[in-house]
Amino acid sequence: MAKRFLSGIQPSGLLHLGNYFGAIRKHVENQDDAYYFIANYHALTTVQDADQMRRNTFDVAATYLACGLDPDRAVLYRQSDVPEVCELMWLLLTVTGAGLLEKGVSYKEKKARGISTSAGLLAYPVLQAADILAVDADIVPVGSDQVQHIEFARDMAASFNHRYGDVFRLPGYQLGTPVPVPGIDGQKMSKSYDNHIPIFLRGKALKKRVMGIKTDSTPVEAPKDPSACTVFALYSLFATPAERAAMAENYRGGDYGYGHAKLALLDQINAFFGPMRERRDYYQQHPDQVEDILVEGGKKARAVARRTTDRARQACGMA
Amino acid sequence: MAKRFLSGIQPSGLLHLGNYFGAIRKHVENQDDAYYFIANYHALTTVQDADQMRRNTFDVAATYLACGLDPDRAVLYRQSDVPEVCELMWLLLTVTGAGLLEKGVSYKEKKARGISTSAGLLAYPVLQAADILAVDADIVPVGSDQVQHIEFARDMAASFNHRYGDVFRLPGYQLGTPVPVPGIDGQKMSKSYDNHIPIFLRGKALKKRVMGIKTDSTPVEAPKDPSACTVFALYSLFATPAERAAMAENYRGGDYGYGHAKLALLDQINAFFGPMRERRDYYQQHPDQVEDILVEGGKKARAVARRTTDRARQACGMA
Repeated sequence: MAKRFLSGIQPSGLLHLGNYFGAIRKHVENQDDAYYFIANYHALTTVQDADQMRRNTFDVAATYLACGLDPDRAVLYRQSDVPEVCELMWLLLTVTGAGLLEKGVSYKEKKARGISTSAGLLAYPVLQAADILAVDADIVPVGSDQVQHIEFARDMAASFNHRYGDVFRLPGYQLGTPVPVPGIDGQKMSKSYDNHIPIFLRGKALKKRVMGIKTDSTPVEAPKDPSACTVFALYSLFATPAERAAMAENYRGGDYGYGHAKLALLDQINAFFGPMRERRDYYQQHPDQVEDILVEGGKKARAVARRTTDRARQACGMA
Repeated sequence: MAKRFLSGIQPSGLLHLGNYFGAIRKHVENQDDAYYFIANYHALTTVQDADQMRRNTFDVAATYLACGLDPDRAVLYRQSDVPEVCELMWLLLTVTGAGLLEKGVSYKEKKARGISTSAGLLAYPVLQAADILAVDADIVPVGSDQVQHIEFARDMAASFNHRYGDVFRLPGYQLGTPVPVPGIDGQKMSKSYDNHIPIFLRGKALKKRVMGIKTDSTPVEAPKDPSACTVFALYSLFATPAERAAMAENYRGGDYGYGHAKLALLDQINAFFGPMRERRDYYQQHPDQVEDILVEGGKKARAVARRTTDRARQACGMA
């Protein structure tokens, strides 16, 4: 049987190239029997405005659909449409040592940075474990910073199974190769640095952003080092190997300015995201279709979660 | 409008005189528009056997019904029949500071005693807050050791309302006067000291337990101090003021042995719990009726909890 993938997506608003090449593309490439949920329960630890939350949730869903997520192949759902995860969280809390929570990397990291931490952030890995176990996921694709949380989920599942019998499927993880996507200032692309290029930016606003990519002051006529250039790095994400080699050649040959490279990048962005942009526009005009897809996905995920939860409830005498 | 009372009952197995005079009697006396739930989610932090959990749950329900709880007046339900409380727990966790959890008295007390503490015990006050807020309870009757948890619930409700609008009713508490019930060794009656007299104990087993109450070695013919005697203290729980005065007279007059007092206590226990014992037998033979009552109660409580949860979900953008 095919392995079931699961991944949670933070509804953190408009997505950018870093999100696309770091996550969305992989999700779309690997979508058969995959469960992708918009982690709105989790997001409550940072987004505290209901309208903002709904807008972000819609944006993420519409973006994924525009980028090629097919609801007939993958299950796309809102976390809060499967409230069973909260019940599973409680059951898992009772088989987890209190000390474990404070070892959670997200919690520790925020605490160390002096950010005021909510109890939700402390319990976060337990809800995350519930998300994974609820739908019997086999594989969670993660970055290296998230491996610990999957190990937590596995430990909690094993503790519960040890105490109450074979209830949860033990999940594994798949470590993704990080795709470096620089922002327009050369640092890692991130909304919080305001150096990002939103996926669906277009026209003058997009051109302004691309032309504003920071480069060094090598004059037009001088040869340039492609490997040291943000424009080249971004171009490489879109270009075929031949196109990439041709641009590297131009860089090294001289008489090729950063402005030329930026325009070539702009063309690539427009060509690549153009069709997605149109689909995004379509969903913007048909929000009910997005809602219907989320509701349907929620029903599918909930049906699986319901069976898992019933097993767990029976096993520990809650029913 | 009448104030809505709520109280949770731990499904910790067969109940004893200490439970009856400390809690059950008060619950039964004050049952109109009261919500009483059997706290089986909570009990998972201590009871880890499904059959034991189901047995304990049944025992508590049958005991309350036998002791006069009327399901037409009060709502008696299993906590796990209202899984909405787990979802509310998550929402409350996100508005609660992480530090608060470690201030919880139950957690601190167990940790101080070197008992290994689960994350469930840490999150316990948040689930308790959810239990209270879910059914819009006005008043939670508590002992002085539980006041802090009600204050937590009130704080969490206020934080949520402050952030998201008027969702939760702020609960208050009613401080009960503790009723001292000594065990057969003179210490506080408690199952963990094995000095308890189960409510439904009868015949020889009950007689043996009562005759085994520890007394001093004052000879039969000598006067005795009623205020220093466990038998007299227990007798006082059942007796009318006139009966109590008469026994005190006997104690002080001499020629009245502890054996006489114990037999008088035995008579009182039998007279008082006799009818309840018969009702308990009836429920033992008709477990389906107990189950039906719990299911009905669960439906009523869940309907209220559903409305509260829908309000909360709307307010923070989960729906």
